[in-house]
Amino acid sequence: MNNSDGQFMHYLVRRLFPICRSLTGDGVRKTLAILGEYLPDLKVKEVPSGTQAFDWTVPNEWNIRDGYLIDPAGKKVIDFKNNNLHIVSYSESIDRTIGLKDLQSHLYSLPDMPDAIPYITSYYNQSWGFCLTQKQRDSLADGEYRAVIDSSLKPGSLTYADLIIHGECDREVLISTYVCHPSMANNELSGPVVSTMLAMYLSKQKNLRYTYRFVFVPETIGSIVYIQKNLNYLKEHVIAGFNVSCVGDDRSYSYLPSRLGNTLSDRVATHVLKHIDPNYRTHGFLERGSDERQYCSVGVDLPIASIMRSKYGTYPEYHTSKDDLDLVTPMGLEGGLNALRSCVSAIEVNRRYRCTQYCEPQMGKRGLYSELGTRSISHAIRMRMDILCYCDGNHSLLDIAELIGCSIGEVYPFANELEDYSLIERLD
Amino acid sequence: MNNSDGQFMHYLVRRLFPICRSLTGDGVRKTLAILGEYLPDLKVKEVPSGTQAFDWTVPNEWNIRDGYLIDPAGKKVIDFKNNNLHIVSYSESIDRTIGLKDLQSHLYSLPDMPDAIPYITSYYNQSWGFCLTQKQRDSLADGEYRAVIDSSLKPGSLTYADLIIHGECDREVLISTYVCHPSMANNELSGPVVSTMLAMYLSKQKNLRYTYRFVFVPETIGSIVYIQKNLNYLKEHVIAGFNVSCVGDDRSYSYLPSRLGNTLSDRVATHVLKHIDPNYRTHGFLERGSDERQYCSVGVDLPIASIMRSKYGTYPEYHTSKDDLDLVTPMGLEGGLNALRSCVSAIEVNRRYRCTQYCEPQMGKRGLYSELGTRSISHAIRMRMDILCYCDGNHSLLDIAELIGCSIGEVYPFANELEDYSLIERLD
Amino acid sequence: MNNSDGQFMHYLVRRLFPICRSLTGDGVRKTLAILGEYLPDLKVKEVPSGTQAFDWTVPNEWNIRDGYLIDPAGKKVIDFKNNNLHIVSYSESIDRTIGLKDLQSHLYSLPDMPDAIPYITSYYNQSWGFCLTQKQRDSLADGEYRAVIDSSLKPGSLTYADLIIHGECDREVLISTYVCHPSMANNELSGPVVSTMLAMYLSKQKNLRYTYRFVFVPETIGSIVYIQKNLNYLKEHVIAGFNVSCVGDDRSYSYLPSRLGNTLSDRVATHVLKHIDPNYRTHGFLERGSDERQYCSVGVDLPIASIMRSKYGTYPEYHTSKDDLDLVTPMGLEGGLNALRSCVSAIEVNRRYRCTQYCEPQMGKRGLYSELGTRSISHAIRMRMDILCYCDGNHSLLDIAELIGCSIGEVYPFANELEDYSLIERLD
Repeated sequence: MNNSDGQFMHYLVRRLFPICRSLTGDGVRKTLAILGEYLPDLKVKEVPSGTQAFDWTVPNEWNIRDGYLIDPAGKKVIDFKNNNLHIVSYSESIDRTIGLKDLQSHLYSLPDMPDAIPYITSYYNQSWGFCLTQKQRDSLADGEYRAVIDSSLKPGSLTYADLIIHGECDREVLISTYVCHPSMANNELSGPVVSTMLAMYLSKQKNLRYTYRFVFVPETIGSIVYIQKNLNYLKEHVIAGFNVSCVGDDRSYSYLPSRLGNTLSDRVATHVLKHIDPNYRTHGFLERGSDERQYCSVGVDLPIASIMRSKYGTYPEYHTSKDDLDLVTPMGLEGGLNALRSCVSAIEVNRRYRCTQYCEPQMGKRGLYSELGTRSISHAIRMRMDILCYCDGNHSLLDIAELIGCSIGEVYPFANELEDYSLIERLD
Repeated sequence: MNNSDGQFMHYLVRRLFPICRSLTGDGVRKTLAILGEYLPDLKVKEVPSGTQAFDWTVPNEWNIRDGYLIDPAGKKVIDFKNNNLHIVSYSESIDRTIGLKDLQSHLYSLPDMPDAIPYITSYYNQSWGFCLTQKQRDSLADGEYRAVIDSSLKPGSLTYADLIIHGECDREVLISTYVCHPSMANNELSGPVVSTMLAMYLSKQKNLRYTYRFVFVPETIGSIVYIQKNLNYLKEHVIAGFNVSCVGDDRSYSYLPSRLGNTLSDRVATHVLKHIDPNYRTHGFLERGSDERQYCSVGVDLPIASIMRSKYGTYPEYHTSKDDLDLVTPMGLEGGLNALRSCVSAIEVNRRYRCTQYCEPQMGKRGLYSELGTRSISHAIRMRMDILCYCDGNHSLLDIAELIGCSIGEVYPFANELEDYSLIERLD
Repeated sequence: MNNSDGQFMHYLVRRLFPICRSLTGDGVRKTLAILGEYLPDLKVKEVPSGTQAFDWTVPNEWNIRDGYLIDPAGKKVIDFKNNNLHIVSYSESIDRTIGLKDLQSHLYSLPDMPDAIPYITSYYNQSWGFCLTQKQRDSLADGEYRAVIDSSLKPGSLTYADLIIHGECDREVLISTYVCHPSMANNELSGPVVSTMLAMYLSKQKNLRYTYRFVFVPETIGSIVYIQKNLNYLKEHVIAGFNVSCVGDDRSYSYLPSRLGNTLSDRVATHVLKHIDPNYRTHGFLERGSDERQYCSVGVDLPIASIMRSKYGTYPEYHTSKDDLDLVTPMGLEGGLNALRSCVSAIEVNRRYRCTQYCEPQMGKRGLYSELGTRSISHAIRMRMDILCYCDGNHSLLDIAELIGCSIGEVYPFANELEDYSLIERLD
């Protein structure tokens, strides 16, 4: 990991930031096209409006060209072009004159955060509205306003993409993130950007043991559509995975378990995070709120955990215009990438081993033990002996790392050495 | 629950209080007759003296008409008519003159509680004795006393009663309490009175899912006789149950587990008590001392836990004349009834459910979700989503309530609603 | 246990102390011959150098007659006859003149313990060296030294011994200790001496339920050889066992688990130690360092735990000349013996029982209950009732002792009494 990874990811966040994304529409397409510049094998797919997916129906496609509010003095006081959060997502097209009093029920602001524009959506209920800062709202003069939203909501399609990086076997690690949020940085451009970087990294690796599936979808409806199309395959092949969201600020690390709570993903995530930051925050599954809601739903139950920096809903800037390009930092993005990359590495090397003979081997004759018997032995010798003593076919390398109190990254080179000396043999 | 329940129960305690109950005899019969006024289907049964029940033999029937001690001055200093605790239960009939010194070995008092008459029994060892306050004892003058106990101990029978309230299935909830204690209120008139009230309540319910079996027995020998007569049936049908004792004071709530410790009764009792009083006291099974000793004995092992207010043996008035009509209060009795009624309700609604489809349902189209996507969601929406996410056929509603951190009483209406919308289906 | 046990054991430690033991050679033979004076059935065995044992080869036999260092002034400054720790174990034979500077790489001392001679071995790497105190080393004058070691290292054999004490069945308790350490007292003469005393004690017992196998071996290579020769038999017959090391000082009690951690040995050891000393120290298996490394190695996995006073590696005198006849005390040795003897007793009486009837038995008719029902019952009555309530065929007496919170030694007489009254029957 070098600093340029963080710089590159922050550049990519900045590049994607101005695009107005929503559940559907050209914003998602533009976003995926940019990601596709870095991921040549990314497959973009379209699902027609009206398609059924379990209990849901793919909604009409929404696109917006402009939106503004002109005050009684003729001044454009709210302008979509300044910030795409100003328009409630999926607002219907309007052009009307309306008194301030009637307008109020279409305005959304945050009294507690007077400088922040809230992020509001109305995907499944036809409506329209403007989001603005409380300060802007308080300064609105009485009188007649002209409210204009130039949008279209009509049959079209929902857009998503996926990318498969093939490994030695067809068992998969699933990485899912979402591409439906307008101009906000941690939630959610950090997810697609870190996922893209992780995919770029994995594409360059040789001899990947597992196959990696990256999924870029609009939240909720997108993952539901994806699950419906792939449920049986995913259930048979996915052995671990992560929902990637809010991985771009540099304040903390967070973990949210899968519904079942004890999957490989959960054990890897808690192991890796503990060794990156002993103070990482653990959330309960009841605090879920992203696409793990679908991946971990009853009967779907894919082994998907969430690794985050500051979790959605827990930081003050969440779902406002304050979740911006300053909140997300190169170092924050690097930390998110590093955590996920460490998880992937842990999954790759996590094998069960078995000693090839009874009793301790004579390490000394292989140069792996000190020549003299003294009062203490070195860390390396201790590591070799301790790893050996749990290579019983029941413990995975992750289990062994936990038992020994080291990270799997520290343990792996020793396990590899012991395998090279034929003192242990792999079972997986 | 309304205050009149407590008032009624306290009235019933007062009505039963003067009767001199023992293991056998007319006191038990009178008590059951009064309870039968409120429970028309109560079946009173007689078991002849000498009947074998496992390791035990039903003892002779004991009845007492009078008992007193006349001091050297001719004054009646101890009188059964003042308090039936004055005579050791199962005392043989005597009429003799005896010096104070010899009398002392037949007197029982409590040096540490100089105003309290202790409760003493001698069921299986022929003997006689007077119980009195330490103050009374200390004031006895030297000289010859006349000791009179007008009792009979001869073949007769042991009396008990039971009541079956039929539900939709023949699996049973067993409620057992005892009717052998003379004039004491918490231990033990609270048990039979609260059990009677619970039976009256259940008799009025329609569509009970389970069958309820109420057992009113003398302690130990009564439950042993009852178990012997019904063991196979009980083992096949009882899914939960409670031993009801000491449920009438208003100082605390207490729980004592079944021998196995993890039965449905245990899980229901701890769940309900935690939500009634987070400071409820948990005892170990080693602190047992009532009829759970028999119901939970090895090989019997019925799923019987104990729910109490202040547990026998833990409060200073226990087994003395101070366990009286002031110690037990309407509010205390109401609390005991409420705890048991909540346990019964929990058992009735405790089912496993399964989601009827994959992924989260679209709650919005059913009016069960907020129309706008904002920064937070309501308690009701959260409840629905959280219940749904554990309706996997493995978790009962009690499990789900524990996982969500709510009482099953709070959870049930939402589960009901989800079932009405066909979003979940019941498995039990 | 009487004080003379401790005195006798300390006498035996003193008698064995001057002998120069090593992995092989006459020191081991002399030691086993002395132990054999007390254990007539001890079988001494010889295994030829070059014999393969799993990954190991029995080394050549080493014997030493003399060793000294003469300083430039002609003074014998280091002399094997003063302390056999002065010569690195397995040093090759030399007689050479060497300058102080070149000599330094053959000298071993402890800067932090300037008065202590360290214990150094070089079993599998041909070498030679002198061990001395830091003070001695600092006082060595510049100049030419004469270094003499009169030793032999040539094909011979490795010597070990075992002893079988037959019980009623052929399932075994294994006691292993090692006899390869030169003049050090806690680590390790305490182990063989306490084991000898335990074997003497068991030989006198009648009606032993289990067979006891005592193993006296050089550390590591000895136990590996022993395991190779007996692996299948041991795996089929050993139900528990202890590695006995460092059982002679009187500072603390320590426990180190088996690799699997939950064997009978582990449960017995922790139970016994808790009741001897609630502050006993628990070590993790990662802190292992004696022959449990072999007995608990993957695939061997005998149920061997370690019981110690101050564990090797944790006390300052460890592996130095300070681990001497003052460090080990009669009281310390008695404590070690007592712990092991209590473990053996626990294993002997640890049976599962089952009640012979349903419900509590009527203890009163057997004189096992108080005649009067009062406010409390005695400890003995409570013990009987509590033991009865867990005699369900699932709990062993050890389990029951843990459940009741007493030592198995306290529980056993009551279980015995209940069995005499036919209230329980044994299943094992």
